Amino acid sequence: MAEPKENVLMEKIVSLCKRRGFIFQSSEIYGGINGFWDYGPLGAELKRNVKELWWHAMTRQRDDVAGLEATIIMSPKIWEASGHVATFSDPMIDCKTCKGRFRADQTDEIACPQKPSKCVNECHGEKTEARAFNLMFQTYVGPTATAADIAYLRPETAQAIFAQFKNVLETSRQKVPFGIAQVGKAFRNEVTPRNFTFRSREFEQMELEFFIKPDEVIEAIHGSVATLETPDPKSKTPDPQPNWGWQAWHQYWVEERVRFYEGIGLSRETLGFHCQTPAELAHYARACTDILFKFPFSKKDADGKVTGDELEGIAARSDFDLSQHARFSGKPMGVFDDELRAAWGKLPKEKQDDLWKRYYENRRNYLLKSGIEPEPAQKQATDDANGLAKGQYIPHVIEPSAGVDRLILALIANAYTEVTKTDDKGKSETTVVMKFHPRVAPVKVGVMPLLKNKPELVKKALEVRDLLRPWMNVFYDDGGSIGRRYARQDEAGTPFCLTIDFDTLGEKPELLDTVTIRYRDDGRQERQKISELLEFLLSKIR
Amino acid sequence: MAEPKENVLMEKIVSLCKRRGFIFQSSEIYGGINGFWDYGPLGAELKRNVKELWWHAMTRQRDDVAGLEATIIMSPKIWEASGHVATFSDPMIDCKTCKGRFRADQTDEIACPQKPSKCVNECHGEKTEARAFNLMFQTYVGPTATAADIAYLRPETAQAIFAQFKNVLETSRQKVPFGIAQVGKAFRNEVTPRNFTFRSREFEQMELEFFIKPDEVIEAIHGSVATLETPDPKSKTPDPQPNWGWQAWHQYWVEERVRFYEGIGLSRETLGFHCQTPAELAHYARACTDILFKFPFSKKDADGKVTGDELEGIAARSDFDLSQHARFSGKPMGVFDDELRAAWGKLPKEKQDDLWKRYYENRRNYLLKSGIEPEPAQKQATDDANGLAKGQYIPHVIEPSAGVDRLILALIANAYTEVTKTDDKGKSETTVVMKFHPRVAPVKVGVMPLLKNKPELVKKALEVRDLLRPWMNVFYDDGGSIGRRYARQDEAGTPFCLTIDFDTLGEKPELLDTVTIRYRDDGRQERQKISELLEFLLSKIR
Repeated sequence: MAEPKENVLMEKIVSLCKRRGFIFQSSEIYGGINGFWDYGPLGAELKRNVKELWWHAMTRQRDDVAGLEATIIMSPKIWEASGHVATFSDPMIDCKTCKGRFRADQTDEIACPQKPSKCVNECHGEKTEARAFNLMFQTYVGPTATAADIAYLRPETAQAIFAQFKNVLETSRQKVPFGIAQVGKAFRNEVTPRNFTFRSREFEQMELEFFIKPDEVIEAIHGSVATLETPDPKSKTPDPQPNWGWQAWHQYWVEERVRFYEGIGLSRETLGFHCQTPAELAHYARACTDILFKFPFSKKDADGKVTGDELEGIAARSDFDLSQHARFSGKPMGVFDDELRAAWGKLPKEKQDDLWKRYYENRRNYLLKSGIEPEPAQKQATDDANGLAKGQYIPHVIEPSAGVDRLILALIANAYTEVTKTDDKGKSETTVVMKFHPRVAPVKVGVMPLLKNKPELVKKALEVRDLLRPWMNVFYDDGGSIGRRYARQDEAGTPFCLTIDFDTLGEKPELLDTVTIRYRDDGRQERQKISELLEFLLSKIR
Repeated sequence: MAEPKENVLMEKIVSLCKRRGFIFQSSEIYGGINGFWDYGPLGAELKRNVKELWWHAMTRQRDDVAGLEATIIMSPKIWEASGHVATFSDPMIDCKTCKGRFRADQTDEIACPQKPSKCVNECHGEKTEARAFNLMFQTYVGPTATAADIAYLRPETAQAIFAQFKNVLETSRQKVPFGIAQVGKAFRNEVTPRNFTFRSREFEQMELEFFIKPDEVIEAIHGSVATLETPDPKSKTPDPQPNWGWQAWHQYWVEERVRFYEGIGLSRETLGFHCQTPAELAHYARACTDILFKFPFSKKDADGKVTGDELEGIAARSDFDLSQHARFSGKPMGVFDDELRAAWGKLPKEKQDDLWKRYYENRRNYLLKSGIEPEPAQKQATDDANGLAKGQYIPHVIEPSAGVDRLILALIANAYTEVTKTDDKGKSETTVVMKFHPRVAPVKVGVMPLLKNKPELVKKALEVRDLLRPWMNVFYDDGGSIGRRYARQDEAGTPFCLTIDFDTLGEKPELLDTVTIRYRDDGRQERQKISELLEFLLSKIR
């Protein structure tokens, strides 16, 4: 159970989100719809900024990643290949008395609809056996609505990347190692949406599938597989090297992603890490590191320590997905590598045998772990050995997969700060300051004429607004006292406010064409030349 | 029927889109899924640029528009209120012989599955009466999948804006007139998706709902309602005025939107306009102007003239939607206006009676046209008259609603240019140059060392890449001859290429730290200082 203090904080955050237009309940005027949330004006800007920064860092700033924007509804065969049709489910029981349906692993927590004083487990209604309830939303495409027309809303964006792997490879001039990035909505019919936007039924993902050479291919080409020392958090992540194996790439992406979070205001102290144990790992995964954030609802472990809840998982996904799509579609998913072919021919026979056997065993083991009956072992082994000799292999994948909505909630929780001030008469007032990093802040700068009824102040303020607006989101505000206007921008998380006053117009000649810049986080104020504003602000928000 | 020449052009465009990674068929490795299309690396960048420019122009560059990002799945009551559950449908017939289902208005065009030489209309299979087939995709939310759990994928983004109107109004410091903007996916289970991405089942919209005062309110406050002269296309759209009625606002938004299209490379000559006739207008609309683009598949009219197909509709939607949501949710959707209250009290009784009767009649007429039984006339009339006297009214709406995918297709068709060059030996070669406006071009600049095996050239080229990359999408290319690299960028639509050669390194001292800039559209080349590149390129792409 979360502690009372923490619930109070979550309630304050939910209330602020509604009051200031960060997050509304979807369809609120109709009583809402459980597990769906809308982003209001400030929330929509915050979310756009985060997605834009991710896209920029993951694709435009790199030579080795290409972007993709695939549809939400895809061929249902994709979800057969990925295993989602068969296994993406929660166990559910039905109560024959009250006709309710409940998660089998939560019957101790859920109140019985007919006897609310008792939980479902205690109410003595006759229950069915637990049955698998698939979490994919289902619909029909086309006019006939027969079984052949069933389609699903994607429960993750990743599979579209695997399905389009060859098209992207062939059109983008990329070679392994390289990645494909995608941002987009995904849907899971969660039985129990909870913790505000943390677990919702419609959510957005930012996923990178980074394709790498299997270790056996690295070993064939480079003689050995390089690993990575734990990088120093204070220095740059090391530059990728051709002889990196999957462990080095996995570590590299964990570090890159942590640096991304640091760059938008989530310090390492607010984050936690969890290396999944073999029992926790998905069937296709070799390793997975979760990056956690310490949310107000995050629970304490046995030692009283808060480790946090998942923002992002960085999984080493083996070649499971590409292999499955090759199997289900009949289309080859392997790549050709002339370095491999050249190197292979020069290896002694024993080394070749050692490498292809390990390559083959790894591939086979992931199938077996996934409950899939592999092809006849002899044929697969021969195909794999022949493939490597010709320079062909199926790439492995490192997948940094982040939830946008969770990140937004983390940024909001991290920014939320209460400031109490006591005035001369001893009266104290508590206000909220949202200390967003300027890069993600929904509004970058508030522009305010000191008085709205002085046309020369208004004219100058509008000039400042128009100077900055092509480059950043500006909020022009001429209503109420300057103190109230600052307070409103503090709640919105605006890092800078500019006030245009009579000194701007030259009342003190030495202050002509300067404005007061006021800093959100410490309330500090100083004069700055209008001519230097744009460069200064750009340096802070980019 | 489209003419052969035009079909050839569409085929070339579809082929280029696949070859260069603009657009792929969704789930292609599984044979595709009809009506769904994915954007590859270049297409995803193009689409992001367009959406970002729209968002920037419609929200960040204006004081009077706030953003929203709502969910795709909303309460089904929203679609009851909007009329989509009852009337958003195509008429379908079933054939009892072949079991096929067909659009009743297309039986002359569709081949009979059992007798493909004949159309459905001629095959003599017994047909059912035409029945309404709702175009909304349906699913179930929650684990029980009963009728109470039915939900729909939104067929338009607009309704979320109406449903959240009050929340946005109350949190954004906006007052009517103001708008709410949203970009997002929508879904329609089209019976016959066609014309590549033009009519697909999953698509993206960019919609603004701009809320204005009803003409009677303007008249009460300002004495009369201003209209607008047709603005001069060469000058700025006039600044909005407080006494504008719906016709002026409608004309203003048509002009603003045309200027947006001009600003991203679609000249007025490529566009067409269609003012919907009373018979074409949706039941809630007072007027609707469609902005058309002359696509390669656009048909000729009776006079042999191509008018084009719809990119965007700018509708005057009356107060129908807000009124319906007020009625269905029981939540008030009116706004309070102190100017109206003050003005109303000063009007003579006859003027008050004239105004509220017209206000009431207009509201009632839209309900009647929509087939909705209004409240008892007497009560409604009294409520409307009392509301106005208290300064309350339901805003009207101007809705510029654009389809992203159609716009992308228009930009691609508009950019597509074939260039034929004949070499010294008389051998001619035709290449494709995609003449995108630099603002929307997926890649802004190609950076190329003359030779990849000269480390000093590569080092300098990487410096230039890293100088520009924080500000724009750069493609670094060191493979093949410079001519081939230029040709690749021409096909991708990259407006500028920079070549780093030995002169850059100072072989000709006067050219030290300059590069060759090569222009896509005319192949012109000139030297430019590296120190001036960033400013020059930013001025072109923003």
